[in-house]
Amino acid sequence: MIVLHHGLRSSASRRVRLCLEEKGLSYESHVVDMANQEHHSAEYLKINPLGVIPTLIHDGQPLHESGTICEYLDETYPDPPLRPNSPYERALMRNWIRHIDGLIGNLIIFNWRHHLQKTAEKWTDEELAEKLKSIPSKERQEAWLRVARKPYTEEERGAARDKLTTLLLDRMEEALKPSGWLVGRAYSIADIAATPFVKRIDEEIAPDEVTAEKHPRVTEWWAKMQARPAFSRAKFDPFITTLF
Amino acid sequence: MIVLHHGLRSSASRRVRLCLEEKGLSYESHVVDMANQEHHSAEYLKINPLGVIPTLIHDGQPLHESGTICEYLDETYPDPPLRPNSPYERALMRNWIRHIDGLIGNLIIFNWRHHLQKTAEKWTDEELAEKLKSIPSKERQEAWLRVARKPYTEEERGAARDKLTTLLLDRMEEALKPSGWLVGRAYSIADIAATPFVKRIDEEIAPDEVTAEKHPRVTEWWAKMQARPAFSRAKFDPFITTLF
Repeated sequence: MIVLHHGLRSSASRRVRLCLEEKGLSYESHVVDMANQEHHSAEYLKINPLGVIPTLIHDGQPLHESGTICEYLDETYPDPPLRPNSPYERALMRNWIRHIDGLIGNLIIFNWRHHLQKTAEKWTDEELAEKLKSIPSKERQEAWLRVARKPYTEEERGAARDKLTTLLLDRMEEALKPSGWLVGRAYSIADIAATPFVKRIDEEIAPDEVTAEKHPRVTEWWAKMQARPAFSRAKFDPFITTLF
Repeated sequence: MIVLHHGLRSSASRRVRLCLEEKGLSYESHVVDMANQEHHSAEYLKINPLGVIPTLIHDGQPLHESGTICEYLDETYPDPPLRPNSPYERALMRNWIRHIDGLIGNLIIFNWRHHLQKTAEKWTDEELAEKLKSIPSKERQEAWLRVARKPYTEEERGAARDKLTTLLLDRMEEALKPSGWLVGRAYSIADIAATPFVKRIDEEIAPDEVTAEKHPRVTEWWAKMQARPAFSRAKFDPFITTLF
């Protein structure tokens, strides 16, 4: 029995939904009511002490971190495999996931203003201070502080756009050269990890970079990803009109 | 054939050295000359495009990220095992590594002023700008900017100390309850990942927190870790007097 606590617009949730669909696994869906702070409730913190989404509950055991969840699903349900066979390629796959995770701050600058900002703006200084205490990374703390009190500027969005172009799209372009997939010769969790990012870049952040002129291999990869039956089932709806 | 490009004081390098020693693997040691910017040289960037340490080269194949390297070593040389048997516990182990990695910004505040600050202070504005362009995470960018131009304040060090106490030591104290190890019933890469952090906390950052009164299980675990033969061989020398 699999239960997924998730958000429709959350990049990490989208990864896990895509992985579940690729595996053909059915799950009970619970969309977390972030506007009403459900992810900060005592009940939710019991299954996810960081108060983030998603959380996967498998046979009663809760797990967070999208990259970890995807690899766990692949170890538990090996067919179809979503990891390369060799230890070295598995390591490269994990480093791709980590590299993309490290870019999340640049995505947050665009994503959170569409919905989380409305929530965070209403917090009192005390509520904000309480929230910040529980966040391990200074980068995430800063992101909450900014959406709550001092929204990101156009210049900051420009810098984030540049990072996503050079450190994600340019590197993907290079990595896709041998086989059309990020690692080894087959589709893997590394491709799943990149998908929510490329979706947002193509949709709003830098659509002119996801083109045959600028990044031909990424553009081909992206068409291939969107054509997969699992992609349609994983609910990558347009970001701005999606509720939570 | 294993080659390790590393730094004696680097927490990530210390993890990999400890893992290699636990496995009983011999390796060719290459200490990266960070004072002379060897990690930013074209030759080094070929094996590590992020310009960070450590890099492991195994049979000619380079790999970075300490957590990834340790898991790769365990998959390649399974004996003695450093990962739990069950997929769920392996997932918890990976999340421990990630959680600790997420706290690195708080360690950097203390660590970099001892040596990297002297290097970074000398950079021209152009050199600094060039360096910042290649760093994916805003947190790491900020850390370089700060050591180069505006060292952290005592208040910031206090906040970092609090994070390391609550989000590392307090959580370890809880996790160690069932078996005395961070995950499952045995020593694993999660314990290796925590070791360089606890070393620095005990040595300089908050020694009064690593005591039988404050964190009895962590203190017992730390004694156990230091007593392992691999620990002595992994060169955890005193931080401040260690030269690169």
